[in-house]
Amino acid sequence: MAQEVDLNADLGESFGAYRIGMDEEVLPFISSANVACGFHASDPLVMERTVALCQKNGTAIGAHPGYPDLVGFGRRKMAVSPAELKAMVIYQIGALSAFCKAAGVPLQHVKPHGAMYNMAAKDITLARAICEGIQAVDGKLILLGLSGSKLLEAAREIGLPCRSEVFADRGYQEDGSLVPRTQEGAMITDEDEAAARVVQMVTKGTVVAVTGAEIPVEADSICLHGDSKKAVLFAQKIHGALQDAGIRIRPMGEA
Amino acid sequence: MAQEVDLNADLGESFGAYRIGMDEEVLPFISSANVACGFHASDPLVMERTVALCQKNGTAIGAHPGYPDLVGFGRRKMAVSPAELKAMVIYQIGALSAFCKAAGVPLQHVKPHGAMYNMAAKDITLARAICEGIQAVDGKLILLGLSGSKLLEAAREIGLPCRSEVFADRGYQEDGSLVPRTQEGAMITDEDEAAARVVQMVTKGTVVAVTGAEIPVEADSICLHGDSKKAVLFAQKIHGALQDAGIRIRPMGEA
Amino acid sequence: MAQEVDLNADLGESFGAYRIGMDEEVLPFISSANVACGFHASDPLVMERTVALCQKNGTAIGAHPGYPDLVGFGRRKMAVSPAELKAMVIYQIGALSAFCKAAGVPLQHVKPHGAMYNMAAKDITLARAICEGIQAVDGKLILLGLSGSKLLEAAREIGLPCRSEVFADRGYQEDGSLVPRTQEGAMITDEDEAAARVVQMVTKGTVVAVTGAEIPVEADSICLHGDSKKAVLFAQKIHGALQDAGIRIRPMGEA
Amino acid sequence: MAQEVDLNADLGESFGAYRIGMDEEVLPFISSANVACGFHASDPLVMERTVALCQKNGTAIGAHPGYPDLVGFGRRKMAVSPAELKAMVIYQIGALSAFCKAAGVPLQHVKPHGAMYNMAAKDITLARAICEGIQAVDGKLILLGLSGSKLLEAAREIGLPCRSEVFADRGYQEDGSLVPRTQEGAMITDEDEAAARVVQMVTKGTVVAVTGAEIPVEADSICLHGDSKKAVLFAQKIHGALQDAGIRIRPMGEA
Repeated sequence: MAQEVDLNADLGESFGAYRIGMDEEVLPFISSANVACGFHASDPLVMERTVALCQKNGTAIGAHPGYPDLVGFGRRKMAVSPAELKAMVIYQIGALSAFCKAAGVPLQHVKPHGAMYNMAAKDITLARAICEGIQAVDGKLILLGLSGSKLLEAAREIGLPCRSEVFADRGYQEDGSLVPRTQEGAMITDEDEAAARVVQMVTKGTVVAVTGAEIPVEADSICLHGDSKKAVLFAQKIHGALQDAGIRIRPMGEA
Repeated sequence: MAQEVDLNADLGESFGAYRIGMDEEVLPFISSANVACGFHASDPLVMERTVALCQKNGTAIGAHPGYPDLVGFGRRKMAVSPAELKAMVIYQIGALSAFCKAAGVPLQHVKPHGAMYNMAAKDITLARAICEGIQAVDGKLILLGLSGSKLLEAAREIGLPCRSEVFADRGYQEDGSLVPRTQEGAMITDEDEAAARVVQMVTKGTVVAVTGAEIPVEADSICLHGDSKKAVLFAQKIHGALQDAGIRIRPMGEA
Repeated sequence: MAQEVDLNADLGESFGAYRIGMDEEVLPFISSANVACGFHASDPLVMERTVALCQKNGTAIGAHPGYPDLVGFGRRKMAVSPAELKAMVIYQIGALSAFCKAAGVPLQHVKPHGAMYNMAAKDITLARAICEGIQAVDGKLILLGLSGSKLLEAAREIGLPCRSEVFADRGYQEDGSLVPRTQEGAMITDEDEAAARVVQMVTKGTVVAVTGAEIPVEADSICLHGDSKKAVLFAQKIHGALQDAGIRIRPMGEA
Repeated sequence: MAQEVDLNADLGESFGAYRIGMDEEVLPFISSANVACGFHASDPLVMERTVALCQKNGTAIGAHPGYPDLVGFGRRKMAVSPAELKAMVIYQIGALSAFCKAAGVPLQHVKPHGAMYNMAAKDITLARAICEGIQAVDGKLILLGLSGSKLLEAAREIGLPCRSEVFADRGYQEDGSLVPRTQEGAMITDEDEAAARVVQMVTKGTVVAVTGAEIPVEADSICLHGDSKKAVLFAQKIHGALQDAGIRIRPMGEA
């Protein structure tokens, strides 16, 4: 299996006077950043500063479009039509692209956020709307989606570059889907266990499901978090474990 | 003086279930459209449709960024900092650019909207912030600003292409500024008078101020309106009068 | 059956510079108005004016709370929690109540809007959240809900006054639910047919379903529309037919 | 002079997933809370929880209406008309009132927020619009405004109850206005100095201006802050100094 991998995290989720995330702390441990685009979080000034921060750290930048639901942080399912979804993806990619152009850095990828990500993971129509929106803006942008999801299926259908994402801190069911947060085994809370799982996912392409079965996963990129001190320590641990295992960490676009 | 000119109007100002403007009716009479970008008006679907409508009519497209004040339609003065202003201009240009890229049409120009336009016309610091935002995204974009305004001054300072705009339906003071709407002579309500004034502005480079004095104006583009039946008739009349005078109507980018 | 009935319509759905609805035209034909509260439509000035307009026409006023989704006009399903739903209902009732207090008119009822109305019609948990929100503000407020819906069931459970609503322009299925808009028979487009159906619903308490079967309905209030010229004519026709049938039209609160 | 005083602070300024303020920490030291109403900060769930928190602590509740500018936290000047301003004040008071009614606690006062507070302090027309909005909802509500401001003048004109507020951490000019934040002497950063000043303001009704002159102030209520650990310590120190001086701390409504 791969001896290199990408580490990604959501960044730039502050808004006006409101601060969320420990962006500066988690940046040293990731190779790709998913930057919020003003619908579920962020605003123009935050986007400008986040792009500058990524540029300073040499971190690859991706757009992180979400539903227009600031009060719900884009986590609430909304019944959007495929046409609306495609248009809101185009809009948000465009907005972030402009900050990248202004800074002179490329836009590498697009990862949908929250409810948009989760709904499209299971709904091929929504997944296609997102992938078509991305391709309409720039066919070289990489779609980052959940391993085994409809998002990846839709991207492959239309020839959009894509990468498969796994979670360091989540349990897996035998069919490759995540254990729902309401069920036991949903979260991996021990950082050493998480680090060991990540190394296995990258080097063997498998993970042990809650049932005990070893199942295949595609681990092009590992999703980390930067929203708490514990999350940053988690990121640091995983970053270290991958390096100890001789796995090179680099942006997904360099694969 | 010039024997050709651009006619521009604000388009794509609908929002969700709300409709404003007679876009289809006014399009035949204009050569450049200022397309709202989702802050003071419009939404992603409306932007996509407006770009398609302009493309179908062969009308050149410009971004029409405004203040984040949907309920006030971007018409209320807001005390934004230059840094915020620059960032919100970059954001909105980017969003519209993405729809242009998706449709395969170029973005020609940027015209600030409402209070942003009016405040920057008189404030060189705000004018610079806007022009720097435009240039940061694409130095070939054209700034469209009020004749004699700080916006044009700022564009020239930094070498950003710019065009000067005059109003068909507004009275002018002797210093070249518009007669405030609260004063007599603010509006030209007779369409024949408006058409005659426009022809003079284009062919002679002058207009008769409310004082009776003939003053110089730069009429690279004429601002029309499409928000009522009367406005559309006005546009039609002016379009016809210019053609009758042998003046070629073409997008500002072809100058 | 009843020889009197209420006629209701949604009012005050304009927003800032955007106009929706023919409020002044439909007011003469209704006895109760559902006034938007600023989440899916309206703004403080529109609310103030709408309350004044109802007061001038002697029309009873109800709050019309919706989801916080202005661009979707509150018509999109959103996965809100019962706690959020209850709080957003309390908030919106309070906002409208203040305009009623300022004008010196009572608030009569509450009718949820759009997706909130439709989701709660079928989901007892959401229905309870709405009814508890209403009761928390004022236990004498009347809940207006779809005939046969969970909203009415929830209101009755907790002892909140309620009225049952039928639609003049919609077809019914044999179980009393509305024919989905995607199916044949969903809309009654002939105004005379609609008027005759309404008279039957009020006087006999029944309606002929799409299957041809005559089914029971509770017609405490008839929902009319005021968003087009045709809708206003429809309202006028139904108003006239009820008067011709000797049925008194009066606000639901006078029942 | 008075041997009792009110201590107030802004509370409930979180929004969705975003947290601002140390509400629980500052509550023990204040007698009145200014609760955000959803325009510049807060949302329905936050408002419900904040009212519950005040109720639990026995803290009197006031509405804290602001401009509709979430991204600017209501701190940016906006050119709103008096009619709009009155309506947005009515709306926000109503929304918070509903949560108070639901909880069974009274609404005591109204303190405008940020740019609304500052603009109305100097503009009698805006001040009147705010006071008329408050009185329209409930003539017994208390307006809390800056000592010597137009807000208090407008309240007295129309017979609206009002209280005068002073700042523990701000320097004063000889005319009684605050030293602008851009000038030296704007902030009192030493907590002991602040506490001593507050005791003097309450017991002697005077404060030493930046010029060294002792000027009169009306200290019905002291404005504290709860947005940082330092601010909470500040609040604790002032609370203690007032108690040591034998001054009773109680809500402004008990005066």
